[in-house]
This record gives sequence, structure tokens and C-alpha cells, in this order.
Amino acid sequence: MIDFPEIENLTRKTSSKILMVVVDGLGGYFDNATKKSELEEAFTPNLDKLSGESACGLSIPVDHGITPGSGPGHLSLFGYDPIKYQVGRGVLEALGLGIDLTANQIAIRGNFALMNADGVITDRRANRISSDISSSLVKILSKISIPDFEIHVELIRDHRFLLVLKGENDAPNYYPFVYDTDPGLDGLKPLPCEVTYPETMKIADAVNSFVSQARELLRDNKHANMILLRGISKVPKFPSMNEKYKLNPIGIAAYPMYLGLAKLAGMEIIGDNADFSAEIAELKSASKLDNDFFFLHYKPADAAGEDGDRKAKVRTLEEFDKFIPDIMNIGADVLIIAGDHATPAILAAHSWHHVPLLINTSFTKGDGQGSFSEKEFRSGSLGLIKAKSIMMLALAHAGKLKKFGS
Amino acid sequence: MIDFPEIENLTRKTSSKILMVVVDGLGGYFDNATKKSELEEAFTPNLDKLSGESACGLSIPVDHGITPGSGPGHLSLFGYDPIKYQVGRGVLEALGLGIDLTANQIAIRGNFALMNADGVITDRRANRISSDISSSLVKILSKISIPDFEIHVELIRDHRFLLVLKGENDAPNYYPFVYDTDPGLDGLKPLPCEVTYPETMKIADAVNSFVSQARELLRDNKHANMILLRGISKVPKFPSMNEKYKLNPIGIAAYPMYLGLAKLAGMEIIGDNADFSAEIAELKSASKLDNDFFFLHYKPADAAGEDGDRKAKVRTLEEFDKFIPDIMNIGADVLIIAGDHATPAILAAHSWHHVPLLINTSFTKGDGQGSFSEKEFRSGSLGLIKAKSIMMLALAHAGKLKKFGS
Repeated sequence: MIDFPEIENLTRKTSSKILMVVVDGLGGYFDNATKKSELEEAFTPNLDKLSGESACGLSIPVDHGITPGSGPGHLSLFGYDPIKYQVGRGVLEALGLGIDLTANQIAIRGNFALMNADGVITDRRANRISSDISSSLVKILSKISIPDFEIHVELIRDHRFLLVLKGENDAPNYYPFVYDTDPGLDGLKPLPCEVTYPETMKIADAVNSFVSQARELLRDNKHANMILLRGISKVPKFPSMNEKYKLNPIGIAAYPMYLGLAKLAGMEIIGDNADFSAEIAELKSASKLDNDFFFLHYKPADAAGEDGDRKAKVRTLEEFDKFIPDIMNIGADVLIIAGDHATPAILAAHSWHHVPLLINTSFTKGDGQGSFSEKEFRSGSLGLIKAKSIMMLALAHAGKLKKFGS
Repeated sequence: MIDFPEIENLTRKTSSKILMVVVDGLGGYFDNATKKSELEEAFTPNLDKLSGESACGLSIPVDHGITPGSGPGHLSLFGYDPIKYQVGRGVLEALGLGIDLTANQIAIRGNFALMNADGVITDRRANRISSDISSSLVKILSKISIPDFEIHVELIRDHRFLLVLKGENDAPNYYPFVYDTDPGLDGLKPLPCEVTYPETMKIADAVNSFVSQARELLRDNKHANMILLRGISKVPKFPSMNEKYKLNPIGIAAYPMYLGLAKLAGMEIIGDNADFSAEIAELKSASKLDNDFFFLHYKPADAAGEDGDRKAKVRTLEEFDKFIPDIMNIGADVLIIAGDHATPAILAAHSWHHVPLLINTSFTKGDGQGSFSEKEFRSGSLGLIKAKSIMMLALAHAGKLKKFGS
């Protein structure tokens, strides 16, 4: 944990290398018919063999019963207490679009919406209009100007857009510094943007000016005649993994959001990967560099789980299994296989369930686990731990943690 | 947990219903002869079958090694951190007598005691005098008057009584606001009631006046010639389960103390139940109302455990088992079976041991547990968790928790 007292006095630089493979949505849940989880059903001979030579356990992403989004799910794995280190929705969307934010940029998640003559929101998502339509609306919004602010509007997808306001001065480091205009439910009026502390009045005024100009410009638009803004935030300044752990970390993923989260933890990133094969090729090259921590992200399992497609989820896990020999060939001193959260196909969503966790080094000899699954890992030697503690185990197994006290 | 940061922004109102059945003193411990716990020895076919279809685990009532009283045991189950949300002993006794306290009433637990000529307490419990004798002493104390305070004295049982002082103004919200007069051990002198902060001087004076008048009135009494007061407290104001969880909860129990604890959590209560059958009949009617959380309390297991009567404890668990079909018939979306603490017959007291925990929904499929016991539940999917987290799992399983972070 990045917040373990004086962790920077306990960590030491060594030549050993840690590879953390994050299988997005790794955990699953029992199916009604088979009473097996996706991992139990999947044919994963490589993972099963690896389990028999590793330390195994389960992780709790945030806390009991808490279903994490991608932000808290990944920050926990990097050792950040996800309750303390929160990322605003606007910033997360900017990360997802691959936008590098500076301290004077304020990122805001926008929705195109429908409002009736009384000023009441009738549909917060404007019938989920297609990207085709909303990209023309984004062009309209791009005409807006506000004194002392540069404005950037960008389509996310469908009814969603990103608004970035670049001011002359840095925005405050606390969050939220102004409140949402999105009332959160249909049937309510949009809220004026309000300040949390008086010094953010200028930001609130800029947001309110943007909204009123947008309302004017969209007045007669049949697709969307209003916008709703939320998650008004700047890029947070977190202590880096280098500062705290003395690591020189690299993140490798195919999607910008995960690379953005890696950057928040102070990682260099290698992006623009077409798929997991391409990521592994990048990892192979990177492993020859001086870096000593590698975060490798596997996305397909989460996507299949979110679609509620059980067979696809099983298949993506089987496909992941085939990469295990390549992953082993990298020759990391410590290999972690973990998940940011469960995405059970039966729920078709992220969930709060426990996630399998595996640590393999030349010292681990297996805990008697015959296969890689939630049920088998319950009795593993790592027990049931909060995800924010996984980095401590990684560092310990890598010989990068000194003795605590004498 | 009621204290999870901004839990009120994560919880949502849905139509699903949660039924939490609390078996008081559910957990037990191994017997010397049989090496089985009470639950292992009990014939509980319904609970065993239910375990095979549920998520199972163990709970730690407060913390490792901590034996909870009924207050912290139950408040934890309702999601309140029992270390932060403490209830004074005086208030707990008042709850046990079914007394509704207002904010200007101060509840105090009293003991009749014996004191020698030097003013030293020789028996803090006055030979545990019977209720017959102490009820006449209570009548004597009822004659006491103190300016600006209304006084109510009521027998609890044997040497125990409740004193309620009703002032003109509300007592402070912190605890303790004045200290005990009970020195806690024989061989010591009673303590004067002392203030914690200057503004409680008037309360301390009233308590001291009561004690000196009582001493005068009991001077020549052979049964008890002194009183000792402790747990001087007012009813605490806790955030309600409605405020935090958006639940509309009902508590059903046969004993006033449990109903009182339910009230502290903001539940409506249905009391005056002759026994558990009557409670279930009430539950059946209540389940048709709009309420979405039901706390149902089963007392007999704890009483048998406290008596050190192993056979009786086994029998009360077997009797509870027979109610499982009726409990299932209520048709709650989420059924929790939990205990506030263990009461092993071999200890004849509450204990710190882990307590079985079961969650049943249409999604749970069983963790491979063949029976309902401490030992079997060790390897359940819920793991070993603090009792204050159980409500989060209840809410998650009921679909009442939104995603945390994006």
C-alpha cells in the first residue's frame, strides 16, 4: 500500500523485475445451470499448472459489497487506497480518450439531453442518440467561447461528450471543487453549477456560461436541446510508484483509459496496441530495458462479462490461458496474475465478488490448488486480502521490502 | 458500513426485500467430550440444505478477541462500527425495560451495595439481593427529589436498578459527560460523580445529590446501605438506516432491548411477541408492507449458552432449524442468517469466536458447504469478515448499491 507508514523508507531498489498481469473482470460467478463459474468452466491447462506452482488467494477490490469502476479497480492493484485516491469522472473520460491533461485543464463529462418547455429534463440521454448525430452537436458546442478559458469539446460515444476548459490558473487540488449540473434523474431540472468554496467561483461561472450558451445554440434541435455536466475535475496528483516503491514502472494496454490510470500512478506507458499479442510483443522488448515493474492489461474478459455472454467470457479466459507460456518466457522474477474486479456474465456487469490472485516466483511451490478458480483459490496461502495490499506482496516477493523495525 | 464514505450516494432504493435473521449467540465452541460445536452436534437438516444453496462465511463481531455485549453485537450487524457508535450502559438498560428516552433524559445503571463504617464498599452487589427485597429499596429511592430534575427509579432485577433523571435541557451528545460513581471493585470507596467538561456540572451535582440522599435513606438498611451508579448516558443520535441505506426497516423481536437497539438504527419496531412463532407471524404480515428490510431476532440459543447448558443450546438450534421453511416462505429477495456473537456453552458466556454467516438469493448456488457449522463455513465464499460489513453484502446482493467510481 502506497499509504503504509513511511513505505518509502522500507522499499529498496533491486534488479528483480515484477510483472503484474491484470485480467480485466477476471472473477465470475456460478451459472444457474452448471453451478460453475466461468473460470471453473474454462479449459485453462496453463493457468491450472501455474496455480500448482504458485501462491494463490483471493482479493477484495475495494471493500465488502462494493462494486468498483475501472478507476478504483486498477488504482487498488497499484497499491493506492481507492477510497482516498479518487479520480473525477471527467478526468477518467479524458484518460479514456487518450488526452493528457495539464493542471490548468478542467475535464467534464457531458450528456446530450432532452428538456421540456418547463425546463424539466425528460431524457438525460436524449434517446441515446448515435455518434453520427452527436458529432454534429459537438461541432455546434465547439463554437462557444468564454473569456479567459480555452474550450475543447470532443465526442465520446452516442450521447456522451467530453468538455475541457483550460483556464489561466491551475484548478484546486481538492475534489469536487464545483458541483454537477446533471440532476442525476429524469423529471428534474438541471442544476446551476455551484461552488464548493468561494475561490472556485470563476470556474462555476465558466461552466454556467457554457451551459447557457449551449442551451441557446441547441434550442430548436430535435435530437437534443440541453446538456448536462458532471464529474468536473482536474487530473489528480498522486504520489508515484517511483517515489513510494522506488520502482521504474511501465504500463502496457490496448485502451487509453488503462494507460491513463497507469500514468496517474507515475508509469511510462506503451499504448496503441492492436490486441494482447501486440501487447506481449511490446512487453518482450520492454523487459530488456531497465524497468522493474510491468503492468500488462488484458481486456476481453471484462467486455464479454459486461455483455452477459457467458460463452464468450469462458472463451476469452481460454484465450488468455494460451498466452501463459509467452508470459512465463518473459522471465520476470515475480509474476502476479490479478483482476481489477469480477464481471460475472450472470450479472452482465462489474460486481463486488472476490477475484483470484496468483503470485509466482522461483520460491513459490503451490498451495495444493489443482486449478485456477475462485473456489480453489479460497483455500490458498494468500488468503482473502484487499487489492490495495497486493503491491506489498509483489514487493516482498521481489526482495524489494526491507525489514520493518528491528 | 454506515460509515463507508458517502454511502448515501452509492445506495439506491429498489423494490427488493432483505430479511436479516439474527440468532442470538449463534456461534459455539467445541465440547471436551465430543470435540464438536453445538451447531455440529445439532440436527439441522433445513439449515444444512440451505447452506448448500447459499454464500457462506464467518463474521467477527467487533474485532479479534473482543467479546461483544448485545449493543455492539447488534449495531455491527446493522452496519454501525461498534467502536464509533457506542451506547451507554444506562441507555441500554432503559432499552431493555422498554423505556423510550427523550434527549433531556439521563439513564443510569444502579447497583445496591454494601459499605462498611470507613465508607469502603464490601460488596458491589449487596449479596445479589432478590428482586423482592430490592423492589422495596426502589420505593425508598423514589422519595428522593432534586431541584430542576424529575426522577424515575425502576427495578431491573436482583441488585440492579435503573435511574432516569429528566432535566429541563437536553444532555450533551458526547459520552461520557460525567463519570461513574461505581469504583468497579470491592475494597474501594465510591467515587464522587465528576464532570468531563464544565458544562455538565449541573448533571454531576444532581447525581451526587441523589447518591447522598440515597445513602442517608439507606443508612440503617441491612440488605444494602449504599448505591453505585454507572453508564450515565443519554439516548445517542445515530444516522439512520434510512438516511444512509435508503431502507425502510422493521425490527421484530420478543425482548425490549433488541427492539430498542433496532430503534437506535431507525427501525420501526414490532414488539410484545410471546415467542419466535409469534415473531414469524408478525413478519408474515409485515412482509406485505412497503418495508424493504426486516430484522428478526431469535433469542433462545443465547440464553441456553449463557446458562452453560450445552444440551439446551443444541435443542434451541434444532428448534430454530424447524422455522427455516416458514422463513423461506416469506420470499425475501435476500435472506441473511447471522449471529450477534458466539455464546459457547463451554464458556457459559458471550465470546469472541467467529460466527457463521449465510446469504441466500436466487443467484447464490452454494459454496460446497454440506452443513451449517463454524468449521464448514470457514471455507465458504464470503470468507472471514467483520460483522459491520455484512450490511454492505446485503445491499449488494439486493441490487441496492451503485458502482463505486467509474
